[in-house]
Amino acid sequence: MEKSEATAIDVPETSRESKGKAPLLSAPAAVQHTAAPRYKRGVAIFDLILRISAATAALGATVAMGTTEETLPFFTQFFQFQASYDDLTTFSFFVIAMAIVTSYLVLSIPFSIVCIVRPLATGPRLLLIICDTLAVTLATSAAGAAAAIVYLAHNGNSSANWLAICQQFTDFCQRASGAVVGAFVAVALMIFLVLLSAIALRKR
Amino acid sequence: MEKSEATAIDVPETSRESKGKAPLLSAPAAVQHTAAPRYKRGVAIFDLILRISAATAALGATVAMGTTEETLPFFTQFFQFQASYDDLTTFSFFVIAMAIVTSYLVLSIPFSIVCIVRPLATGPRLLLIICDTLAVTLATSAAGAAAAIVYLAHNGNSSANWLAICQQFTDFCQRASGAVVGAFVAVALMIFLVLLSAIALRKR
Repeated sequence: MEKSEATAIDVPETSRESKGKAPLLSAPAAVQHTAAPRYKRGVAIFDLILRISAATAALGATVAMGTTEETLPFFTQFFQFQASYDDLTTFSFFVIAMAIVTSYLVLSIPFSIVCIVRPLATGPRLLLIICDTLAVTLATSAAGAAAAIVYLAHNGNSSANWLAICQQFTDFCQRASGAVVGAFVAVALMIFLVLLSAIALRKR
Repeated sequence: MEKSEATAIDVPETSRESKGKAPLLSAPAAVQHTAAPRYKRGVAIFDLILRISAATAALGATVAMGTTEETLPFFTQFFQFQASYDDLTTFSFFVIAMAIVTSYLVLSIPFSIVCIVRPLATGPRLLLIICDTLAVTLATSAAGAAAAIVYLAHNGNSSANWLAICQQFTDFCQRASGAVVGAFVAVALMIFLVLLSAIALRKR
């Protein structure tokens, strides 16, 4: 029982200290809601960190796929074996889609900072969750499509008589696989972004 | 000018009628919040309709892809040309993923009804938006992967020496394409579901 009493004494002291230190900044918000802004500000900071991580992962995936090409060291008299990402339409779509997603994520950072400065504003948060949802579906479709092609390149398909090109173009395939993994990491981070925004929007 | 006056007289009559008819049902909610529950209940009903439509589209896509097979009418002495959806791993993934999404959408209908009955409860709505986000990414990855394979089946790829199998298996390809379109319709409806839940969660 002594411990719970000690806790009960500690809590008002802490809140009194913070009230004494920053009365000018948080005074208007603290009148209406005491606990909500601090909790929402934490969510907004975590949102910014996740957003930067997702942008980095998406940028990595874009660059990795966009620079994927391989020229085999042997050639015949008429033909040199060469593979580039834009030989496959799906990989071109992947690069374009992930570049759009990266640009969006970078451009959305100011809105995320607005959410940190004004944790109770629902306008920027609603805008972010709508655009995040669209961006996550774009990134997921690009990642899924590229994954299907990478799987086909690795394993081939005997029914359709499609050969596994990865037996020749080893580096090309490894790089494309890495780009797909990066894209799925970005997708996972962006799912967290959407869920975080949903939790922050919730009426408490 | 006579016409607009006639309209202005009609409108109050209609709203007076509806007020007179349903005072017993909406009385407890109307004490605390006058406009919010009716607006939120409308959103919840729209959510249920969208959910049923998305489940129907997802079911259609699953069944269309799951029954896709074609046997060509000519055969050699040793081999009969036959194509089925499970010859391609991506199409098997598509069927499984869309079956999961369909089951989830059907099972989530009771939660959507709970949101209609209690429009101010945020718990079921938060659960729905989290599961919806996961379901929409699963459906999008399946649709994107299948679209990449269908594109390849239609057009082939000269760089990788993959032939367009749709020149032989016409019905097979048309059916698979239809399933992909159905899946993207389901994805679009589910994006609206997520956005609708986000708007309903917003603190007013």
